[in-house]
Amino acid sequence: MREINGGITAVKGITASGIHCGIKKDGRKDLALIVSEVDASAAGVFTENHVKAAPVLLSQKNIKRGRARAIIINSGNANACTGKIGYKHAEEMADFTAQSIGVSSNNILVASTGVIGVPLPINKIKKGIPLLVKKLSASGGLKAVEAIMTTDTTPKVSAVEYKCGGKSIRIGGIAKGSGMIYPRLATMLSFITTDIAISHGLLKIALKESVNRSFNMITVDNDTSTNDTVIILANGLAGNKPITYKRSKEFNLFLEALIYVSTALAKMVVKDGEGATKFVEINVNGAVNFEDAKRIAFSIANSNLVKTALFGEDPNWGRIICAAGNSGVRFNLGKIGFLIGKQKILEDGNLVKRDWESKVKGILKQREITIVLNLKMGNAKASVWTTDLSHDYVSINSSYRS
Amino acid sequence: MREINGGITAVKGITASGIHCGIKKDGRKDLALIVSEVDASAAGVFTENHVKAAPVLLSQKNIKRGRARAIIINSGNANACTGKIGYKHAEEMADFTAQSIGVSSNNILVASTGVIGVPLPINKIKKGIPLLVKKLSASGGLKAVEAIMTTDTTPKVSAVEYKCGGKSIRIGGIAKGSGMIYPRLATMLSFITTDIAISHGLLKIALKESVNRSFNMITVDNDTSTNDTVIILANGLAGNKPITYKRSKEFNLFLEALIYVSTALAKMVVKDGEGATKFVEINVNGAVNFEDAKRIAFSIANSNLVKTALFGEDPNWGRIICAAGNSGVRFNLGKIGFLIGKQKILEDGNLVKRDWESKVKGILKQREITIVLNLKMGNAKASVWTTDLSHDYVSINSSYRS
Repeated sequence: MREINGGITAVKGITASGIHCGIKKDGRKDLALIVSEVDASAAGVFTENHVKAAPVLLSQKNIKRGRARAIIINSGNANACTGKIGYKHAEEMADFTAQSIGVSSNNILVASTGVIGVPLPINKIKKGIPLLVKKLSASGGLKAVEAIMTTDTTPKVSAVEYKCGGKSIRIGGIAKGSGMIYPRLATMLSFITTDIAISHGLLKIALKESVNRSFNMITVDNDTSTNDTVIILANGLAGNKPITYKRSKEFNLFLEALIYVSTALAKMVVKDGEGATKFVEINVNGAVNFEDAKRIAFSIANSNLVKTALFGEDPNWGRIICAAGNSGVRFNLGKIGFLIGKQKILEDGNLVKRDWESKVKGILKQREITIVLNLKMGNAKASVWTTDLSHDYVSINSSYRS
Repeated sequence: MREINGGITAVKGITASGIHCGIKKDGRKDLALIVSEVDASAAGVFTENHVKAAPVLLSQKNIKRGRARAIIINSGNANACTGKIGYKHAEEMADFTAQSIGVSSNNILVASTGVIGVPLPINKIKKGIPLLVKKLSASGGLKAVEAIMTTDTTPKVSAVEYKCGGKSIRIGGIAKGSGMIYPRLATMLSFITTDIAISHGLLKIALKESVNRSFNMITVDNDTSTNDTVIILANGLAGNKPITYKRSKEFNLFLEALIYVSTALAKMVVKDGEGATKFVEINVNGAVNFEDAKRIAFSIANSNLVKTALFGEDPNWGRIICAAGNSGVRFNLGKIGFLIGKQKILEDGNLVKRDWESKVKGILKQREITIVLNLKMGNAKASVWTTDLSHDYVSINSSYRS
């Protein structure tokens, strides 16, 4: 497996485009389209927030067919919490796109991201769609990713290629997101394309597994958005013998490559977390099971007091243990091991005697920080990726609408 | 019932004191003592954090007797997460206090608050205790409350008096806390005294009920501390006929007065929330049951995105509905009513047509803000009190140790 350039349009038969249609006031791109030249097998995972945006409801309905041709996405407006009119707007986005590329409406998936609770400027989108279709190209992946950004400061793109049965298989993905990031069984927006031939059932399994290992292991601010969506299109143009067995080497190769792309994108989302000055990996080891390890890791990752201490490079490690204690998971405080970077702080629950403080201060000055908590109860472990909580996070989010 | 001055020492037979013994570097008071001149019936509720500080473990043990004479409290150091030595230090605090006032050690309750993970400077405390005992006085309540403050900017004191069966009953309370505030079945530190005569069983019931209606309905930052403690001492010196029936008018009068004092203290904690510029009341009405209403209210109150928008006075109300959707409670988005202050925003799930935005902007400029969400599913409701999330919160918590 090797990394390649081109993102989603590195994949055979995939074209994409991105334009400014007028939703964003500052002239940045705000409308994106991804099209497969043939019908693709399609799978998606969507937000677990009970309040789902209109485009999520529509995409959940259309994706039930298991196949799709295109995804239309706007940024600058989430089309969420706007009542009945919101669903009508999402349908109109699908209808206009379908007409413009000459397929039926239920072939189209829709996603939106941006401010919640403001009606979508649907006429601007309708006017933009013909130009968007005209601009579709096999090098348009970067324009599409730019058009799905909101507070993102960098586009998030990943693609790989690997060999399978003499055929070259490609997987490309894009993602957006830097605030309202605490995906639960789903994520912010991410769109992944692949030319592999695979059964629809296995595509769904692979997507769910890779999301659980990547996007579901990140948090910026403990808020799950109304619009979280990950969609994968697999158009089969790689020409491989279709994958139909889960226990096959071919499926495992695909899953591994898909996890690679998903994890790369998920980490990019965290690194671009709103106001983030630190990228923090939290490893909880020695747990009885994965769920316990994950709960503790997220309890630490979502603590504002841990996050502000990380921002301040303040070795206030007691907050990390306090947050672990708030996870609801039982463990023996008198047994745990605890490290920041490579510096031991607690050994069998007792504070190490030697001067650890100056070393931890040095570690906390780095941009990437690792925290390790060993419960010494079992063999399960989990890693979660997160950010600190900075003044810039407060600035960005105290005036998002203005 | 009327409010009175004097806090905990307004109560018959209660003396208190507060001194600087050297834990805090800046010379502020850091050691407090509350003593009842006769054995008092004692009840307590303690943190639900699985990681409990040493003084919490010791107080939980001593309070099992149902009676106590004194409470010793230090600030500036939480005596949490320091291993076996921490528990020994808590025992020494109890032992020295017991010797100094001439009772046995299991009559003493202990509490600590401050930085986590640093060994307690126990010798400074031991040296301070004789002076602390010498300074005990019937007007020492304010000195005691000063000595339990950490990042608090104001002392939190409340007291009431009411008549019951011809006798005058008094209840006084003090509290501390402005960060790491998301009490769960417990709270930060609060000490309440009363001269009522009441059975130990009913005192425990009254304390639990009043905590659930007050301290358990507040949040500053979604972090439950390792040290949360509320203790009530009832010394019976009011001379009333002891209360022994839960369904009596006398018990209800006491409960009402206790809830009054607890709620007053709880709101003071929120108003003094770290970096807070807003005091926010979140009312969820029309729920199927109280637990659902409470979960939704806390999901809104604990959302960083809601809190930063409130700080920025940004009418980004969609985040409030998004946070409600993250609560895990099911409701019909197409039916809900939603107001900020007195301004309707959603009616039957649809955005009101008239210009609400300028009105909401005006409401958000006020220091106290009310949010109302009506689910229209039932008759249950809950109110939660919280703060915004400001630059000052980040500043305070990014350099707490330094």
